[in-house]
Amino acid sequence: MTESKAVFVADLSAGDRIDDFFVLAEKSMAHKRDGNPFLNMTIADKSGRIKGVVWDDVPRIAAAAQTGDVVRVSATVGEYRGALQLVIKSVAAVADGKVAPDDFLPASGRDADQMFDRLKAAMDTLKNPYLQALLQALWDDPDLVDRFKRAPAAKKMHHAYIGGLMEHTLSMVLLADKIAGHYSGVNREVLMVGAVVHDIGKLRELSYRTCIDYTNEGRLLSHITIGIEMVSATIAAIDGFPTELADLIKHMIVSHHGSREFGSPEPPKTIEAVLLNYIDEIDSRVNAIREFMAADDADPSWTAYHRLLERQFFKGGPTTAGV
Amino acid sequence: MTESKAVFVADLSAGDRIDDFFVLAEKSMAHKRDGNPFLNMTIADKSGRIKGVVWDDVPRIAAAAQTGDVVRVSATVGEYRGALQLVIKSVAAVADGKVAPDDFLPASGRDADQMFDRLKAAMDTLKNPYLQALLQALWDDPDLVDRFKRAPAAKKMHHAYIGGLMEHTLSMVLLADKIAGHYSGVNREVLMVGAVVHDIGKLRELSYRTCIDYTNEGRLLSHITIGIEMVSATIAAIDGFPTELADLIKHMIVSHHGSREFGSPEPPKTIEAVLLNYIDEIDSRVNAIREFMAADDADPSWTAYHRLLERQFFKGGPTTAGV
Amino acid sequence: MTESKAVFVADLSAGDRIDDFFVLAEKSMAHKRDGNPFLNMTIADKSGRIKGVVWDDVPRIAAAAQTGDVVRVSATVGEYRGALQLVIKSVAAVADGKVAPDDFLPASGRDADQMFDRLKAAMDTLKNPYLQALLQALWDDPDLVDRFKRAPAAKKMHHAYIGGLMEHTLSMVLLADKIAGHYSGVNREVLMVGAVVHDIGKLRELSYRTCIDYTNEGRLLSHITIGIEMVSATIAAIDGFPTELADLIKHMIVSHHGSREFGSPEPPKTIEAVLLNYIDEIDSRVNAIREFMAADDADPSWTAYHRLLERQFFKGGPTTAGV
Amino acid sequence: MTESKAVFVADLSAGDRIDDFFVLAEKSMAHKRDGNPFLNMTIADKSGRIKGVVWDDVPRIAAAAQTGDVVRVSATVGEYRGALQLVIKSVAAVADGKVAPDDFLPASGRDADQMFDRLKAAMDTLKNPYLQALLQALWDDPDLVDRFKRAPAAKKMHHAYIGGLMEHTLSMVLLADKIAGHYSGVNREVLMVGAVVHDIGKLRELSYRTCIDYTNEGRLLSHITIGIEMVSATIAAIDGFPTELADLIKHMIVSHHGSREFGSPEPPKTIEAVLLNYIDEIDSRVNAIREFMAADDADPSWTAYHRLLERQFFKGGPTTAGV
Amino acid sequence: MTESKAVFVADLSAGDRIDDFFVLAEKSMAHKRDGNPFLNMTIADKSGRIKGVVWDDVPRIAAAAQTGDVVRVSATVGEYRGALQLVIKSVAAVADGKVAPDDFLPASGRDADQMFDRLKAAMDTLKNPYLQALLQALWDDPDLVDRFKRAPAAKKMHHAYIGGLMEHTLSMVLLADKIAGHYSGVNREVLMVGAVVHDIGKLRELSYRTCIDYTNEGRLLSHITIGIEMVSATIAAIDGFPTELADLIKHMIVSHHGSREFGSPEPPKTIEAVLLNYIDEIDSRVNAIREFMAADDADPSWTAYHRLLERQFFKGGPTTAGV
Amino acid sequence: MTESKAVFVADLSAGDRIDDFFVLAEKSMAHKRDGNPFLNMTIADKSGRIKGVVWDDVPRIAAAAQTGDVVRVSATVGEYRGALQLVIKSVAAVADGKVAPDDFLPASGRDADQMFDRLKAAMDTLKNPYLQALLQALWDDPDLVDRFKRAPAAKKMHHAYIGGLMEHTLSMVLLADKIAGHYSGVNREVLMVGAVVHDIGKLRELSYRTCIDYTNEGRLLSHITIGIEMVSATIAAIDGFPTELADLIKHMIVSHHGSREFGSPEPPKTIEAVLLNYIDEIDSRVNAIREFMAADDADPSWTAYHRLLERQFFKGGPTTAGV
Repeated sequence: MTESKAVFVADLSAGDRIDDFFVLAEKSMAHKRDGNPFLNMTIADKSGRIKGVVWDDVPRIAAAAQTGDVVRVSATVGEYRGALQLVIKSVAAVADGKVAPDDFLPASGRDADQMFDRLKAAMDTLKNPYLQALLQALWDDPDLVDRFKRAPAAKKMHHAYIGGLMEHTLSMVLLADKIAGHYSGVNREVLMVGAVVHDIGKLRELSYRTCIDYTNEGRLLSHITIGIEMVSATIAAIDGFPTELADLIKHMIVSHHGSREFGSPEPPKTIEAVLLNYIDEIDSRVNAIREFMAADDADPSWTAYHRLLERQFFKGGPTTAGV
Repeated sequence: MTESKAVFVADLSAGDRIDDFFVLAEKSMAHKRDGNPFLNMTIADKSGRIKGVVWDDVPRIAAAAQTGDVVRVSATVGEYRGALQLVIKSVAAVADGKVAPDDFLPASGRDADQMFDRLKAAMDTLKNPYLQALLQALWDDPDLVDRFKRAPAAKKMHHAYIGGLMEHTLSMVLLADKIAGHYSGVNREVLMVGAVVHDIGKLRELSYRTCIDYTNEGRLLSHITIGIEMVSATIAAIDGFPTELADLIKHMIVSHHGSREFGSPEPPKTIEAVLLNYIDEIDSRVNAIREFMAADDADPSWTAYHRLLERQFFKGGPTTAGV
Repeated sequence: MTESKAVFVADLSAGDRIDDFFVLAEKSMAHKRDGNPFLNMTIADKSGRIKGVVWDDVPRIAAAAQTGDVVRVSATVGEYRGALQLVIKSVAAVADGKVAPDDFLPASGRDADQMFDRLKAAMDTLKNPYLQALLQALWDDPDLVDRFKRAPAAKKMHHAYIGGLMEHTLSMVLLADKIAGHYSGVNREVLMVGAVVHDIGKLRELSYRTCIDYTNEGRLLSHITIGIEMVSATIAAIDGFPTELADLIKHMIVSHHGSREFGSPEPPKTIEAVLLNYIDEIDSRVNAIREFMAADDADPSWTAYHRLLERQFFKGGPTTAGV
Repeated sequence: MTESKAVFVADLSAGDRIDDFFVLAEKSMAHKRDGNPFLNMTIADKSGRIKGVVWDDVPRIAAAAQTGDVVRVSATVGEYRGALQLVIKSVAAVADGKVAPDDFLPASGRDADQMFDRLKAAMDTLKNPYLQALLQALWDDPDLVDRFKRAPAAKKMHHAYIGGLMEHTLSMVLLADKIAGHYSGVNREVLMVGAVVHDIGKLRELSYRTCIDYTNEGRLLSHITIGIEMVSATIAAIDGFPTELADLIKHMIVSHHGSREFGSPEPPKTIEAVLLNYIDEIDSRVNAIREFMAADDADPSWTAYHRLLERQFFKGGPTTAGV
Repeated sequence: MTESKAVFVADLSAGDRIDDFFVLAEKSMAHKRDGNPFLNMTIADKSGRIKGVVWDDVPRIAAAAQTGDVVRVSATVGEYRGALQLVIKSVAAVADGKVAPDDFLPASGRDADQMFDRLKAAMDTLKNPYLQALLQALWDDPDLVDRFKRAPAAKKMHHAYIGGLMEHTLSMVLLADKIAGHYSGVNREVLMVGAVVHDIGKLRELSYRTCIDYTNEGRLLSHITIGIEMVSATIAAIDGFPTELADLIKHMIVSHHGSREFGSPEPPKTIEAVLLNYIDEIDSRVNAIREFMAADDADPSWTAYHRLLERQFFKGGPTTAGV
Repeated sequence: MTESKAVFVADLSAGDRIDDFFVLAEKSMAHKRDGNPFLNMTIADKSGRIKGVVWDDVPRIAAAAQTGDVVRVSATVGEYRGALQLVIKSVAAVADGKVAPDDFLPASGRDADQMFDRLKAAMDTLKNPYLQALLQALWDDPDLVDRFKRAPAAKKMHHAYIGGLMEHTLSMVLLADKIAGHYSGVNREVLMVGAVVHDIGKLRELSYRTCIDYTNEGRLLSHITIGIEMVSATIAAIDGFPTELADLIKHMIVSHHGSREFGSPEPPKTIEAVLLNYIDEIDSRVNAIREFMAADDADPSWTAYHRLLERQFFKGGPTTAGV
């Protein structure tokens, strides 16, 4: 059984004594004037992060845990140059599974199992036996399913929280179903399978045990490459999977960023791949703007400047327009 | 009552004698070795275009009609350097309304009145009285409605045929309705009105009486600017139209190309404007790719290279994939 | 009668007591350790800005004024972490017209009325009656003229001060006159009217009552779009204004940024529009570089790096070269 | 035993009668004035291509072969509008293996077996057992080795001939060896294996049986994606292959185009990947420029304008400089 | 004394016999069916170009002249495939100076000596002795002055005719004088000298004896580099020329294209260099648009599409607007 | 004889008294509350920089030295707001040559004389007498050779230390020799001379007496322009230097940045110039990445984000991969 945290970073006040679980976000060794070493540490949970120092027992505590580990920290909360700072007495690594990981990372507000059930239900309407076999092979891997329910869709920008990938994937599948019904001649099944697998490489591109970051593999290969590895190997194990259908599904992964400059080795070359790229852009853009609007409260009408999208967004919007 | 053409350019053979209606697409004066003038002319209808020469009665025929006019042409079909060529006997301007304009331009396969009825029905679900007043003011202008039913959406690329603007607008309105239902917090009414008016400036940007071309106004101002003029004047005539709602609707027109480099003076700054830009891109892109696939039959699997989209498209697609 | 400020932000010293007019530039609520709220405020005038805190009577003071209001502030000047900080006792909104607005924003060193007279004199040389009617209709709107004399030309970068738009417009008109005389075949009247109206949309794009900022309308539509609205409506009210002349004047507004990527829906397509774009670039660039050189005194020879223009400018320049 | 061609396209003259092997490059059906069908065909060999028509026995000949097939053509050489044209009597498909494929495509001037032996010798100097196992697994696939010896490196631009991929790969391996020796701290083995496998996906991206073209798989996935599939599967079959070493090798494939805009999902992130990208650019650029210089003889000093590289190259060069 | 041409290419008719001077624009050897060689030649003068063939005496005629030479051609005018074609009897090289070079290249409509006098008069107003010494050193080189009066300003695009560089330079100097008077604080002398020397490298970048083309030096170094060489050497020979003034003048040359992407190694970093770049752009753009408008008569209102400027220009313009 | 520093900035502790040599990196006048002036100064050496204040004797000390001068500073080390700060008692300018300049700037770890000897030895293998004369003329200028041994190759990014230009040049010459041997048909002599002179303009573009910065000349003209001036003047003094060879050598300088956007007025147009550009990129890139990896120790596997190269680099690399 996992233990829960009692107190979160955002709630700390000067004078508090704490003995609780946090992620060890950063650590570095420094030296005092007298030449003796001390440790700077930053610890974090889903509510934020705080700096601390270790004055005593430095070598043992330095060796107790690695960056990214969940640790039990005993400390007092002080102030230094106008900000709260911990004076840390002890740091102990915590066995995996001992704590609820959801205390350390922000999470989707929606239930992952329910989202997965809706996803499976939507995909059960597919008729092509090879595509069904491909999905079944994925669902038959319990580790993959577990990670799929938990993975974020990104480190920043959109759906950057536990369960974000499932939320993004499900939204895209449902939107794909609507758009496939709007235009005649679109292969609904290829489009929907494309929506399911397009970001599957993110299961290995990102680590999200205690904080969201890129893996070595992710930084070196990208989720598009990893997704191709995963789907290629799965398809190769299905007897008689038609070659062209395989190429079309892989093309959905390869081209879903829309152009080379955004990391797709080839641009979309089928109607379905063109649509998947737009559906991905719509869903990630809408989520990104909403999160940005929600996080920003300095001005009632306009958000701050969004560096990546290079504009401010209007929040006053339709409601205040008397609609 | 209008008269119909009997024969189309695509059906001409050497030796034919014709006496029929065409558009005068080009004309230029040249001189024979003996110093006497002759006329080069190109005439066209919706099936194609053909060159011709006028040897006799040159000054009178030269003055008979202007480029873009519908003319009655009497000629014989000959051959010159391996291609068919007309020897033109007479050219007479034809009064407007005397001929069916649809003989001269390709047209949507769908009925414009039915499309317009579906558009109005979709918009009748709106509740905001000012938006209803705006739409009513547009529909109350019979000349505008006539042009809306007839205008193409572009000179090339997508929906470049009579009725194309109505087809494109209706498709966008229906898609907007679906997407507004997919995401909570989207102002459906602003989005749908934006879909109706986003390209309304094309009614004056393009001329499409006998061939599709840009007007002087269109080339100098662009359909975004003209659309703003039209909607601003209409809104200004509605008592009490809320300022912010007016700005939001105009913003849909201003920003619908998505970024400055594509001709929008401001990028989309509301969720609704972001969605409208994607819906416009999806609908024009899908139409453009389909038209390009349909027009191309050199290779069963791949289209020719699409210069603007910088790729070939795969036609073999899903069907041949055994789905 | 308006009252004047007695003291400016740039002159404050620790220990001063003040009771004077300022612009409320920012405010935000925070909480003390004991849970009670306090207010952070920034107040400003044309000489600079300073932070302050409100410890007492917080709810009433928080409600007393909005960002952008001119307020009467009673406070003492203290120090906090090495910088001056106000401890604010009271904040009271001030009725419009009670204070001289020029105390709060930097202003052109030149007299607005004189500049406007020179502008009118230059335009009185025009002969085309429709262009004269257009100018007359603009000058007949006293509110427009008032704003024209007062508006800045930008929020930052160039002529970003009260009277800046008039200064920029007049300079462009005079330069346009010279260049129209240099090249034969240039329509001097279209060029000079273009210079007058090209930025007229800035009257509504920017607010500059107490600080320069974009309006909602400005951010959603851009001054190009607003300028088109203003000039279109004005022209529409002039009987018999020639269509082509109207399009040419509007084209000057539409194209004056020179290319789509800089916000013009169409690039310049007449000699006059090409010249107007260059004249605008020259005048804004020269003003921007001079202001940047004047504001910078860290190094005698070179300015700091100009982020937008991506270079340092050489100040040593010709004089030190012994010319 | 294969048969050889007797005559090549470049050597045909009007009046010749031919009965020889060619590639069927294009075919399309057309109709005569009398409504009867005829066939347009283009046939080719490594010396060039020529158009022809089939007047008789059209349906049978139309069905005899597909584009890309080697065919036996019986025809007479005539002239039509100033160019040679075949009148084709019969077309018969030829069994694979019956003809020497090298008659139909240009080929490297170097011996493929010798190049492969040099490549293997260079790689035999590697010490890492897993990298040796990876290479061995590739060489153990006789089909892969055959294709490696025969494949071109591109459809156009550089090494676009039979054996071109081997020539390009060997040159890169030898250059990589030199550069690895020039800089300390470079992992020579990772760099050299990267040089061997970086373009291995071209074995499936391109078809080069009778003419060089992209495969469906190549156009949909790109050689980078295909190379990842091939190397991933090979590595997965080697017991204990270190994960990080696998990622580093795959990263060489993923990043070898240098940036996303050139089709690499990730840019080079190790010194070895940075070097591989430069070595690839140098070798393909040098080959491309030399081929372009050699093919061009219009002017003694300068080549024609190279559209992709956007410049003319100077041929007069060093020699005429008296060096 | 030079001889003049009697007949120009534009005036030739079938059946004419000619014996006159032309530029040998192109020549290439070909072979007849019987294996004997013949020559294809293109000859030109300032009115246009025409193709021809040499059937007899081929080796001698082939050796008689090089591309770019002025030659005396004896020929008859025939027709081949619908176009005029010469059958050339003899070709003889002509000694330099024997013919008037102005027969072979289009020329400015203005008198070069008069333009040069105006240029010198404008520059005589300068007061700085070092700048006067620099100009004097240039004018003291009679070869340089001759070339300055004759050189075109470009191969294409603007002022691409004999005398074009003088016309362009004079126009810029006069415009620079006006603009220097418009803005206070501009160093008029540096600006005007910059206008004189900015393109001086074109004297060696371009050859324009019989046709305008780039020299080897021009293609390898660019006129900016060559201009620096020329001005640096001239300044180095003037005793006591101030270092900073020298750098400022050279900076005018270096930066006059405005940015690196247009070939300037450094962007303008003084007000004078910023102005020179705009003056150069205005003068070359205005000339380019006018030449393009003048050459184009297919449509009364709009020019053809200008590939480099990526737009059509409106010719109807102000006049038709009733101004 | 020069004196050496006793203590370096990086070794200072609060309470120290110093009396030693530093570079005066920055100085600015400020005023105390009582209206009296004080001086802020920053002093530096090759180990880092530190701020200080001068309270007494301000006018004399302010006038004692200029930014960039080496000064003798007498001061005590205190703390201010958590950082060390000097209270400076006296500042005295130091005669040039009195101190070892290498105390103030980081330097290559390699011996400049040895590197120069290797460079000369490599170039002694050249056979062309004019190229030998060019090199000899450079080596005969002792001032040039001194600066060549001492100059950095850049202000930042790569080889940004004393001796960096020699290190970079020698590495390129040796690499050029290897690559010239790899490809037949490359003019080894032109390539190697190009490597020697390509950055020679940096001798005047950069100042590096006590800190590395751009000179006025460097910022106004760029090292490409200056290099052309230097090599042009040198070549002009060699009797009979072939024109084309001169152009080819100058072209190596002009084009070595590879494209206009990177500051080359012309792109590489010979094989040798193409290779020189790649060799320059490889050598500067490898050095830049290594320096960046070495300076960064926050994370064992990945560097920080490199802003210019827009990525993180993988440090774990090959070694940890078990190679």
